[in-house]
This record gives sequence, structure tokens and C-alpha cells, in this order.
Amino acid sequence: MKTREIAEFLNGQLDGDGDREILRVASLEKAGEDELSFIEKPEGFPAGNAGCLLVPENFDAVPNIPIIKVKNPKLAFARIAAVLHPPKKRESLTHNSAVISKSAKLGKDLFIGAFVCIGEHSEIGDGTVLRAGAKIGDNVKIGANCVLHPNVFIEDGCRIGNNTILHCGVVIGADGFGYIRDGANGYEKFPQLGTVTIGDDVEIGANSCVDRGALGETRIGNGTKIDNLVQIAHNVRIGERVVIASQTGISGSTVIEDDCVIGGQVGFGDHATVRSGAIIGSQAGVLPGKIVRAGVWWGTPVQPLDEYKRQNAHVKGLARLKEEVKELKKRIK
Amino acid sequence: MKTREIAEFLNGQLDGDGDREILRVASLEKAGEDELSFIEKPEGFPAGNAGCLLVPENFDAVPNIPIIKVKNPKLAFARIAAVLHPPKKRESLTHNSAVISKSAKLGKDLFIGAFVCIGEHSEIGDGTVLRAGAKIGDNVKIGANCVLHPNVFIEDGCRIGNNTILHCGVVIGADGFGYIRDGANGYEKFPQLGTVTIGDDVEIGANSCVDRGALGETRIGNGTKIDNLVQIAHNVRIGERVVIASQTGISGSTVIEDDCVIGGQVGFGDHATVRSGAIIGSQAGVLPGKIVRAGVWWGTPVQPLDEYKRQNAHVKGLARLKEEVKELKKRIK
Amino acid sequence: MKTREIAEFLNGQLDGDGDREILRVASLEKAGEDELSFIEKPEGFPAGNAGCLLVPENFDAVPNIPIIKVKNPKLAFARIAAVLHPPKKRESLTHNSAVISKSAKLGKDLFIGAFVCIGEHSEIGDGTVLRAGAKIGDNVKIGANCVLHPNVFIEDGCRIGNNTILHCGVVIGADGFGYIRDGANGYEKFPQLGTVTIGDDVEIGANSCVDRGALGETRIGNGTKIDNLVQIAHNVRIGERVVIASQTGISGSTVIEDDCVIGGQVGFGDHATVRSGAIIGSQAGVLPGKIVRAGVWWGTPVQPLDEYKRQNAHVKGLARLKEEVKELKKRIK
Repeated sequence: MKTREIAEFLNGQLDGDGDREILRVASLEKAGEDELSFIEKPEGFPAGNAGCLLVPENFDAVPNIPIIKVKNPKLAFARIAAVLHPPKKRESLTHNSAVISKSAKLGKDLFIGAFVCIGEHSEIGDGTVLRAGAKIGDNVKIGANCVLHPNVFIEDGCRIGNNTILHCGVVIGADGFGYIRDGANGYEKFPQLGTVTIGDDVEIGANSCVDRGALGETRIGNGTKIDNLVQIAHNVRIGERVVIASQTGISGSTVIEDDCVIGGQVGFGDHATVRSGAIIGSQAGVLPGKIVRAGVWWGTPVQPLDEYKRQNAHVKGLARLKEEVKELKKRIK
Repeated sequence: MKTREIAEFLNGQLDGDGDREILRVASLEKAGEDELSFIEKPEGFPAGNAGCLLVPENFDAVPNIPIIKVKNPKLAFARIAAVLHPPKKRESLTHNSAVISKSAKLGKDLFIGAFVCIGEHSEIGDGTVLRAGAKIGDNVKIGANCVLHPNVFIEDGCRIGNNTILHCGVVIGADGFGYIRDGANGYEKFPQLGTVTIGDDVEIGANSCVDRGALGETRIGNGTKIDNLVQIAHNVRIGERVVIASQTGISGSTVIEDDCVIGGQVGFGDHATVRSGAIIGSQAGVLPGKIVRAGVWWGTPVQPLDEYKRQNAHVKGLARLKEEVKELKKRIK
Repeated sequence: MKTREIAEFLNGQLDGDGDREILRVASLEKAGEDELSFIEKPEGFPAGNAGCLLVPENFDAVPNIPIIKVKNPKLAFARIAAVLHPPKKRESLTHNSAVISKSAKLGKDLFIGAFVCIGEHSEIGDGTVLRAGAKIGDNVKIGANCVLHPNVFIEDGCRIGNNTILHCGVVIGADGFGYIRDGANGYEKFPQLGTVTIGDDVEIGANSCVDRGALGETRIGNGTKIDNLVQIAHNVRIGERVVIASQTGISGSTVIEDDCVIGGQVGFGDHATVRSGAIIGSQAGVLPGKIVRAGVWWGTPVQPLDEYKRQNAHVKGLARLKEEVKELKKRIK
């Protein structure tokens, strides 16, 4: 792709040679002559051998290579990367080892890899990729252009939207964790009869788990992104455009509204509510039933970040406070 | 099932029409005419359209629908749900893609799904279900009426009791994490030659791991319930009727006695002991070698809940304490 | 193996019968006549029925069984255990259900189990074991004498050294977790075009995940040992002989240098650096960008262990401090 074409595609302003051929994107340090990179800040001009740079609109150094001015260089970089490095095209194919129920309704242009299973009455939308060992239960509905990486499992009755990516080892729709104590006899299993509904443009990381609802459903909204090894319990409702980092766990019936950002290793008690726009720092703990408003939060139990920091400073100052009290005691004597 | 039959099955006291036909259970908000739900508290009478309600024995409102008075409505609800929604019956079947050692001893009425492997001299009890992609090593013994969900793996020599459920991606009997430092050469692997023994009526959640003992065994007692993404290290011994929530990790040789309840994301150091009846809150941390007595515990390192709360209150009051000391200093001057 | 042969193999000093036949290793409590165990401390002499004991060089009790004096009994025990209990020998075999690309380059003496997949142009070194359901993408390179346990997945382009062990369910090379917010439209995926490079003699526990680099690579050095359910994000660089316990999570671009020891459930923010020789306690939290020097660290945010303990003591003493201030106020009045 020529630098001129890239500038056009990104609606950016090219400064320099428009005919340079760009083959790939790369990091600033590693980029070579036929590679494109980006800088986020307008100051200075980086050393390096990139063939072209995406720069912010207020960039004003005089470069010796073609540059393209854009509003958000990192976003523009992601977009052009998606063009220069399209996701691996898997040809339409059904591997002869796949086990597909006769009642399954298969769309067009599917990739169905080796050792895939598709259960009764399940529907797979056009262009969806089921990689080796992916397993789809009965009465599952998967939209168009999804990618299910190897060994993903979707339990009976769950629904997945369009353009959704599930990474290797994701488990959707296993039984939730609910029991009732029956005295000395131990635990009776509470019914786990619900389902899971996942929206469009969702991405879920490797080995994460989304349990089915006990009676109702567990929901993940459009555009939500979830990292590896995350636990989402029964009847949790996650809104749209939520980001959840690795190893976070969300207990039953908790609600996370649109546009929240959740760090890694955060723990949520059950029946909590996180209001739209809240940001929760890593390793924080949200108590059962707690309502977390918009703003930045940290600690266990979670507090507004400012309070948390102030409190931490007080704790750090404890040795001095103790000294001061000792001194006062002496003086009073 | 008629309301009268349900009342009989539950040993409950029917008040109202005994001939109403109930097809399903449902949540209170969603339940319709042919569905049954429950309430746990005797006060008030819920709106909604349920066809029948399980209520506590001291319930005394006058309902306009059939009610059934029982000791523990939630428990009764679970029991009748198990009757109205029996686990999916999988017909006795061995999929022709399964790879089964000739020396394996298979019980009656097994379901053996696609791409299942069963190793040498392994035994599978009557009525057990091995779903697609489950893999059983050599010399494994699995009891009757178990369900191994897709992609479960049981390593050589492990033993599973009866009526036990292992969810998708569970790994039983991988090597424990033990090494000995050999100076600058790095680490030598300590032998991981033991096994895992899991009792009856156990349930283990998706992608959880139970490592084999180093020299002895890792044990999980009857009736214990473990959530998703839990880590159980080598030589851990877990008693009967223990409940462990998601993402908790238990280090080597730690003992958790009968009837404990462990929250999510709890971390246990090695060689700790949790006495029967202890309850440990989520995200708590138990130091190596610590003995945790019966009672409720929280925090890192764990403290009795009362102490933990009192300490938290003191920390929250630090700003004021600091002010008071400042004031005293002024007055002394 | 005779006690004399064991002493020779371990370069130890035998005291007692050199002809006793030893079949197995065992724990001290369980060891019988034909089994060998070890003690780490020179004091006392353990009860038990072991057939032979490895003891420290300064051991001086008079035993009634053959003993072998060695520098490091636990290390010697691990070494002789590896001889007496060699890893299961899997004969050279390619199961007929395996799906192997014609362009793959396979070494000698491979074990390729049922339902294994090997993609285009991938190379597998001599003596490597791919157990049932292991899946290798395209252009992957795996060294000699590795063991990939069931259901391991290696994504396109990743590289694994020699003698490396990946336990069941490990995912190598899934996309990292990187997005750019595009206002109300939600998130655009940042390119995840890099790779993963894993050295020799590495061991990674069950269901752990190592994401591919965004633009560069994610690296794990020789001799590093990683436990179950660990998360390693894109572009993380882990040195040699590092030990990481279960459920720890490491965010993007963080560097952990050689010979560090990391506890379980630790969380690392992105772009942190842990200097060679640091030891970090379980459940600790390392802030983004933080540099952790050699020494022992604990808490969130991590502090030197001594400081952490002192601070904890101050917090525990808060009730008393409050009392003292109250008393002072009274006296001043």
C-alpha cells in the first residue's frame, strides 16, 4: 500500500513522498523502510528507520520521511494494521472429522475445523469460523463472522451475536455455582436452567468462563471486551463497551453497566451494581449488594480513588503519629 | 405435574387448587400460569403470575393462587426443579470416533461422546457420561453416574467417586508445582508421583485444576462443591461438604476440614489448616502453616471478621485521630 | 537399584548395607522396606520403615538402616526419583486420527496422540510428545523432547525450546488484550501481530495463558517454571530460572528478570520491572511502571517485607493509640 493510499484511507494529511510502498506495521524501534509506525505525542522526532509515521495533527517537526497527520494516531494505526494484516483468511471448509448434527442449520462460507462438534438444531451464521476442537451444544445460535478458537465450548441453548471472538478454551454456559444447604446432608444443587446471551463485537479471552443463568440469563452486551481467565457467574449482566482485565471474578446477579472499565483480579460480590462509567482498579474488591457510582475506585472494599490514596498516606504516616503521641505523653508528664 | 402431586412429593401442605398443571419452575418475576416459583420470607404477598408458590410454613397471607407450605422453600424448589427439569438424558452410546483402550473396563449405559479417549486399564462405572473430547488416562477409576463435560482431562491413576460432575476444561491430576533449587543451574523437578482421589457427589467448575500429590494423594471429600477456575495444589486435603467459590487458590498440603465455606479469590499458603466450620471471606489470604478455627474470617492475613471490621474502622478514622493529635500539640504549646 | 548404586549415582557416602534393593521413592511416613526417602535436618532419627534414607552430610545418629549422606538430600531425592520413576515412556507413534499438514516437518521418535492437529510448515523436534487433543497452529517451531499434555494449544508462529513441558489446557499465543477507545463507537482492536518465544526446560501449569506480543514478542526464558492458571500478557518478558506460583497475572510489557520468585495470586500492572533476585509474596500488587529491586516484597502496592510488617504492626496497634490520645485529652482538660 502506498503512503498516499494510507493517508486517504485514514483521512489524514500526508507530508512527504506519497509513493513509498508500505508492507507492514511495526513498533517504532523495529520499523524498517517498508514499515509504518506511529507516535502519540507531537514533541520531538523519534530516531528509527520507519518508512512512514502516523503523527498527531499538531505535530510540527520537519521529518525526513513521509508522515501522515491524523486525529488519533494510535487508533489510525490500529485501523491501517487491520488492512495491512487482515485476519487469516480461512477458506470455506468442513473438515471430514467434524461431527455435525443433521438438524444443525449452517450458514455460508463457514470454516469448520477438525474435531469440531455441532449439536442438534444449532445455527451457525455466515462466515463464522469454528477452529479445531470447538464444541457447540444443542439449540445454540451463533451469528455471522464469529471466530471460535480451538477447544471453545458453548453449552446448550446459548446465543452469540455477530463478529464475536472467543479465544481458546472459553467455556460459555456451564452450570452456575448455586447450592442450598440441607443440614447434615450437605448441599442440594439449585437449578441452573437459564442461558447465556452474548452480543455483537464481543471478545472473550482464553480459558475464561461465563456461567448460564440459574433461572434467567447471563448477558454480555455489544462491544464488550473480556480478558483471559475471567469468571462471570450466573445471572450477571454486563453492558455494552465494558472492558474487563484478566482474572477478574464477578459473582452471581451483579450488574456492570455500559462503558465501565474493570482492572485485573478484581472481585465482585453478588448482587452488586456498577454504574455506567465507573473505573475500578486492579485487585479491588466490591462487596455484595454494593452500588459503585461513576468515577475511579480502588481497594477492598472499594473506595473512591482519592479517599483510598489519602487513607494509604495516613497508614504510611502511622509511625510518625505514634512518635508524636509518645512525645506528647512525655511533655505532659 | 399437578400441584397436589408436587405438594405430596415435597411433603408440603397445599392450600388451593390441587389440579393445576405445572410444567416448569421459574423466577418469581418471570413465572407464568403453568410455572412454579418460591418465596423465602413469610411477609407480604408478591405480585406476579406464578401458577403456584412454595412458601414458608409460617406464611399467612391469603393468596389467590395455590401455595404449598414447606419448611425450606428454596430447598424444596431445588428438589422439585430436579424432577420437572431432569438433567438431559443422554442415551447409551459410544461414538465411533472415541478411542478406547481394549483393556478399559466399561460399565453399562455409558454415554461416550465424540473424540473421547480412555486409556489402559481404566474403569468407568455404570451410567457415567463422558462428553465430547473428555480424556481419561491410564489406570483411572471413575464411579457410576458421573458427568464429565467436554474436554475434561483425568491424568493416569486418579480416582473419582459416584455422581460427581466435572465441568468443561477441568484438569485432574496434572503434576504439582514442586522444584528444588540447584544453585546457578536453576531448578530440578521434585517428583510428582502421587495421585488424586475425589469422592462422591462432588462438583468442580469449569477450567479448575486439581494437581496430583507429590508422593501421596490430593483428596476431595464427598459432597464438596468447587466453582470455576479454582486451583488445588498437590497434597491438599479437602473434607466433605466444603464449598469453594471461584478463583480461589490452595497451596500444597493445606487441609480444609468438613463443612467449611470459602469465598472467591481466597489464597491459602501451604501447610495451612482450616478447621471444620470455618467461613472465609472473598479475597482473604491465609498464611502458610496458619490454623484457622471455626468462625468467620476475612482479610490478608485472615483475622476474625469482628477484629477485621474494627481494624478497618480504626483505619477509616485515622484522619480524625491525626487532627486530634495536632490539636493536642497546639494546646500543649 | 541397590543402595550401593544409588550412593554412587548421587556421589553420596553410603553407611550400611549396600545390597538392599530399592524399587521406589516414598514419603518418610509411608516408605516401606524397598523404598527410599530423605530427611533434610540432621537432628534426631525418624521413626518409619524406609529401606534407605538420604541424609545431610552432618547427620550423625546411628541408624538401623542404610543411609546415604549427601549435600542436599531433597535435591538428591529428586534426582534418584527421576531415575527410579522415569517419565512414562511413550513409544514412537502417530495416531491415525491426528490431522497433520503435509508441509509440517516432524522429527524422529515422536508421540502424536489421538485428535492432535499440526498446521502448515510447523516443525516438531525429535522425541517430543504431543498428547491427545494438542493443537499446533501454522509456522510453529517446537524443540526436542518436549511434552505437550492434552488439549494444549500453540497459536501460529510461536516458538518453544527443548525439554519444555506444557500442561493440559495451556494456551500459547492467543491475542493480547489491547484496544483503543473510539469515542461512542466503543473499542477498536489494537493489532496483535507478534509472537511468543519460550525457552528450554520451561514448565507451564494447567490452563495457564501466554498471550502473543502486540507488535514484538512475549518471552519466557530457559528454566523458568510457571504454575497453573497464570496469566502472562502481551510483550511480557520473563527471564531465566524464574518461579511463578498459581493464579498470578502479569500485565503487558512487564519485565521479570532472572532468578525471581513470585508467589501466587500476585498482580502486576503493565510496564513494571522486577529486578533479578526479587521475591514477591502471594497476593501482592505491583503498580504499573514500578521498579521492584532485589529483596523480599509484599502487600498492595508492594513494599519491602520489613516495612510491610512494621506498617501492619502499627495498624494492629491503632486501638491502643486511639486510647492513648483519648487519655491525653482527658489529662489536658
